[in-house]
Amino acid sequence: MAKVGIVMGSDSDMPIMAQAAEVLEQFGIDFEMTIISAHREPDTFFEYAKSAESKGMKVIIAGAGKAAHLPGMCAAIFPLPVIGIPMKTSDLGGVDSLYSIVQMPSGIPVATVAINGGKNAGILAAKILAASDPELLEKLKAYSEKMKTEVESKAEKLDKIGYKEYLASMKK
Amino acid sequence: MAKVGIVMGSDSDMPIMAQAAEVLEQFGIDFEMTIISAHREPDTFFEYAKSAESKGMKVIIAGAGKAAHLPGMCAAIFPLPVIGIPMKTSDLGGVDSLYSIVQMPSGIPVATVAINGGKNAGILAAKILAASDPELLEKLKAYSEKMKTEVESKAEKLDKIGYKEYLASMKK
Amino acid sequence: MAKVGIVMGSDSDMPIMAQAAEVLEQFGIDFEMTIISAHREPDTFFEYAKSAESKGMKVIIAGAGKAAHLPGMCAAIFPLPVIGIPMKTSDLGGVDSLYSIVQMPSGIPVATVAINGGKNAGILAAKILAASDPELLEKLKAYSEKMKTEVESKAEKLDKIGYKEYLASMKK
Amino acid sequence: MAKVGIVMGSDSDMPIMAQAAEVLEQFGIDFEMTIISAHREPDTFFEYAKSAESKGMKVIIAGAGKAAHLPGMCAAIFPLPVIGIPMKTSDLGGVDSLYSIVQMPSGIPVATVAINGGKNAGILAAKILAASDPELLEKLKAYSEKMKTEVESKAEKLDKIGYKEYLASMKK
Amino acid sequence: MAKVGIVMGSDSDMPIMAQAAEVLEQFGIDFEMTIISAHREPDTFFEYAKSAESKGMKVIIAGAGKAAHLPGMCAAIFPLPVIGIPMKTSDLGGVDSLYSIVQMPSGIPVATVAINGGKNAGILAAKILAASDPELLEKLKAYSEKMKTEVESKAEKLDKIGYKEYLASMKK
Amino acid sequence: MAKVGIVMGSDSDMPIMAQAAEVLEQFGIDFEMTIISAHREPDTFFEYAKSAESKGMKVIIAGAGKAAHLPGMCAAIFPLPVIGIPMKTSDLGGVDSLYSIVQMPSGIPVATVAINGGKNAGILAAKILAASDPELLEKLKAYSEKMKTEVESKAEKLDKIGYKEYLASMKK
Amino acid sequence: MAKVGIVMGSDSDMPIMAQAAEVLEQFGIDFEMTIISAHREPDTFFEYAKSAESKGMKVIIAGAGKAAHLPGMCAAIFPLPVIGIPMKTSDLGGVDSLYSIVQMPSGIPVATVAINGGKNAGILAAKILAASDPELLEKLKAYSEKMKTEVESKAEKLDKIGYKEYLASMKK
Amino acid sequence: MAKVGIVMGSDSDMPIMAQAAEVLEQFGIDFEMTIISAHREPDTFFEYAKSAESKGMKVIIAGAGKAAHLPGMCAAIFPLPVIGIPMKTSDLGGVDSLYSIVQMPSGIPVATVAINGGKNAGILAAKILAASDPELLEKLKAYSEKMKTEVESKAEKLDKIGYKEYLASMKK
Repeated sequence: MAKVGIVMGSDSDMPIMAQAAEVLEQFGIDFEMTIISAHREPDTFFEYAKSAESKGMKVIIAGAGKAAHLPGMCAAIFPLPVIGIPMKTSDLGGVDSLYSIVQMPSGIPVATVAINGGKNAGILAAKILAASDPELLEKLKAYSEKMKTEVESKAEKLDKIGYKEYLASMKK
Repeated sequence: MAKVGIVMGSDSDMPIMAQAAEVLEQFGIDFEMTIISAHREPDTFFEYAKSAESKGMKVIIAGAGKAAHLPGMCAAIFPLPVIGIPMKTSDLGGVDSLYSIVQMPSGIPVATVAINGGKNAGILAAKILAASDPELLEKLKAYSEKMKTEVESKAEKLDKIGYKEYLASMKK
Repeated sequence: MAKVGIVMGSDSDMPIMAQAAEVLEQFGIDFEMTIISAHREPDTFFEYAKSAESKGMKVIIAGAGKAAHLPGMCAAIFPLPVIGIPMKTSDLGGVDSLYSIVQMPSGIPVATVAINGGKNAGILAAKILAASDPELLEKLKAYSEKMKTEVESKAEKLDKIGYKEYLASMKK
Repeated sequence: MAKVGIVMGSDSDMPIMAQAAEVLEQFGIDFEMTIISAHREPDTFFEYAKSAESKGMKVIIAGAGKAAHLPGMCAAIFPLPVIGIPMKTSDLGGVDSLYSIVQMPSGIPVATVAINGGKNAGILAAKILAASDPELLEKLKAYSEKMKTEVESKAEKLDKIGYKEYLASMKK
Repeated sequence: MAKVGIVMGSDSDMPIMAQAAEVLEQFGIDFEMTIISAHREPDTFFEYAKSAESKGMKVIIAGAGKAAHLPGMCAAIFPLPVIGIPMKTSDLGGVDSLYSIVQMPSGIPVATVAINGGKNAGILAAKILAASDPELLEKLKAYSEKMKTEVESKAEKLDKIGYKEYLASMKK
Repeated sequence: MAKVGIVMGSDSDMPIMAQAAEVLEQFGIDFEMTIISAHREPDTFFEYAKSAESKGMKVIIAGAGKAAHLPGMCAAIFPLPVIGIPMKTSDLGGVDSLYSIVQMPSGIPVATVAINGGKNAGILAAKILAASDPELLEKLKAYSEKMKTEVESKAEKLDKIGYKEYLASMKK
Repeated sequence: MAKVGIVMGSDSDMPIMAQAAEVLEQFGIDFEMTIISAHREPDTFFEYAKSAESKGMKVIIAGAGKAAHLPGMCAAIFPLPVIGIPMKTSDLGGVDSLYSIVQMPSGIPVATVAINGGKNAGILAAKILAASDPELLEKLKAYSEKMKTEVESKAEKLDKIGYKEYLASMKK
Repeated sequence: MAKVGIVMGSDSDMPIMAQAAEVLEQFGIDFEMTIISAHREPDTFFEYAKSAESKGMKVIIAGAGKAAHLPGMCAAIFPLPVIGIPMKTSDLGGVDSLYSIVQMPSGIPVATVAINGGKNAGILAAKILAASDPELLEKLKAYSEKMKTEVESKAEKLDKIGYKEYLASMKK
């Protein structure tokens, strides 16, 4: 049974939303992913948001761009945490999406991550579930260790070959 | 029967929304005004937006601030024109409200007016109705004439008393 | 007789303005499209805006970029609704066009759509005309249904092939 | 044992952070509130963030303004969800705080709420805990019902007395 | 005969426009000041802009706020220099006025000064006239000397009494 | 003898500054063009700005990007009009250049044109000189006529071939 | 002999610049404070910047607002570190000052602190001098300790009296 | 022994950080360069910042992007000057990095340079060290002379070949 719902307003958001899905897969968390436009199919959207809890979902990850209403409208209906991903936009860089998602009125929070922050949305969902799942928490700690090791190995490489060679190796 | 629906997400928007109502009254246009939060009472909101057409409404004027979803969600459901008023906000000046209302995705336009533009929302609603109502159109032309006369009388006053006295008279 | 005037300040705006024209064609609405610069040929512009009503126009769609004065000046002269399209700009992303169009002073509204929102301008014009044209309203409802179906088919595809294949199919 | 840590970088943030505390009290959630500056006392901060999990905390709510590093640094150390509240600032309105909190790099999410969104941070913490606490979830649903009722009673008042009296009653 | 026209869209701009007038008076430059709204009385505006040259005007100073079209429309008609003053606005601080005035399309420049820069608009007009008026140029140089002397006397005061007393003297 | 000085802080600004030069050439106005960095060679800059008047210059056109000080520092020294061109920047789009040029303090105006507005700077310089040169004024009027004709011919083309062919012809 | 020069473009910047002076006094660092406008008295400014090194100055702290050129022009002439303080502005909040100071071209850095960051400018100057002054470095460490203690005492107070009383005590 | 530490949060910042390193090499200043993420390896970061002084470092140059905490956290621990480089970001242009670095709270300054200002960070570090190193100061003056000569030779080239050929030569 899916614990996390991933929903996007348009399939143009797929490359970012897929990052969230990949993270959840890495952590072995069941998720359900779909495309629903709050604007183009409000009834379908309502049905989705209303039934999510009864289907066992604990967190919804919603991504949208421009006048991004999907995360906020999910949060208005779904009683558990909603994570919002503001999509980068070609004209305003995503500041429109960000404001439309993060500036929610009192009473209806959306847990907003960075512009195009698909990966972080997946990690945040895992952290939320880990609050009551010690095993998942251990996986998150291991993930942090891995991130640390990756940076360390880069630092070692830099230390060994110097910045000029490092820079050259990046351009290859 | 009300031809225009005026809806706001919070009664803190009332001073701006009342400007729209006053304009409609001046033009003798029937309207219905209410407070519905798309976020706090999504079912009530859905019912409102879905029944608006059958109640005879031709235009909805929706005002909201911050992550302002009310106008866009109205436009997703109501098939006729929706006018959106972005409310000024204390932190971002209203640019959050503006982006949340005007940057609608393809297919679902909101006719957006200026930040805190309650009066202009009322006039725009009248202009929309006037497209099929010659009598109302005449009233709009008379309204324009009145605006013109007001500026002219200020210009005459300035011409007569000079800018120093004019400035002094403004401070009284 | 054209019910909608489409006017742009420069032919560089044509790709966006053509989107509005295409929508009107789909809905079977007569329109007239021209290029008039309020800045480079103010007399021609005045003549255009003043004669629009008598030529039977019910709505004007005006697009402009940067210090975009065309929509607002249309609204100062033409007594019926003016829809403004802010063009994306290469330096400021279109926020200059947006502010120049949406922040109109009290008394002279411009119904502003999203940056580069040519399609939405066309739909908004149709919605305005539909307020007194039940047949057109039915077409708009059918259009909404079609949009809904398009999203649904994408959701079905995602459900069937999964996000990885979906993503791969997008890159092709 | 406190399940939620509330931490702020300066006691000037207290009025906003107190909103989060009040919400947690309403929901009967144990919390611990303190003032720690990641900049002025980095050792104290490290100790706090490192020991939070072992003290039983499931969520940290961190508020900070300007170059707001407290929420992000908490998220770098504490393995469970961190909620960030960007404080409004007198010069930039809080957009500096918002960017410093929400734009976290890949791997270290902060669940960001609106500028000055103290109340929403409290509610979001409750929602996170409710993912594994059905009783708390019921309280959240009751809270939503109460919000709905409050808006409804305002709508009824408006319906009864009209917008002019409503407006007058607000000014008292 | 007036060499400079000062025009504003609304008498709310008077406090700033009066600064320009005062500067021109100081330099003994004849000017004519009026209130004309390009939006509310387009015909009056056209007549004004078209007749300005024949009335002997060499420069127009135009101030406007929000979607500020007055300076740009003057520049579209009047063949000599137009100076634009963007008014500070209560919501966006005047960045809307600034963009609407300075971002003019190719071919139609507006010489834009700072937000609320009434005084500088007056000085710029004087500088433009001084290009062919050696006497006026001498007055401008004397004005610069006076500005220099004012700063020098402040520096001397600071040197004499120290910053603490200086600060105290400012608060009186 | 050069009547207009064109100065840029870096030769990377040349493509924009050359537009100003081309316009002056079209109008037959003598100009002198050079590269001087107020930051990298302050003495050379001072010498330039101080000697400009005695060399017969009536207007300086100064272009600069980022923290653009060149136009403002010219205006601090040269007693006649200085036109500032804010260069587009790769990170902030040129809003940094714009603010650094237009927001001059009281007493020292810079006549600012649009971001990358090289052509408009040239036209503005011509307009300034035309205030005392009737022959040049006639050339400016002819230039305006030419601009008008260019737009008209585009409008005619559109009218003849329709928007679809027009669009197609643009892509060639 | 003064090691630090404090210079501001206008005495309206005094309240912020005085914060820098107070910090230097606390650390026992000799400084010289004056008012010089790079725009209104360029010669005086040049003389100041050129003679600063020979007078023994090691650091200049320069504050300015709007199109703030003073810090950058100091950095163009004075070969040692220049610290820039962007002043808050009434219209743009100080983002104009910030961009004008921080976005310096390659070769001429200004060490920029926060908007209105007078105190931090003083501390940064002390840190720069402390790079070769172990005694001063000890004072800086003691200063840090004091800041730490101040936050700790606030945390203790909060712990003792609880957030409600703390909040109440702030309002007194 | 390294006098300057260069640290970046991610090796994607290397192209900019290498500019700082190159400048230090030119001036013959010993430096140590590494990659440490304050977010991904907070313990490593703490150890680095705490030991920097005892390792003989006098200045740290820290670069980071988005919610850039590295420079500010260095400044919270390292008692000597920290120079911050805000990285350009693909969505917000680097304004997020800039605000996260420059808007530090009172007591903890970061000497901020321009977005992507790697070279200027290197020069600023040299200027800081030059405050107590006359030999280095001479090198800095020579560097300034070289910059001056470079601009002069460009000005001479322009003078010789004219702007049209100059422009053509740039395109090659």
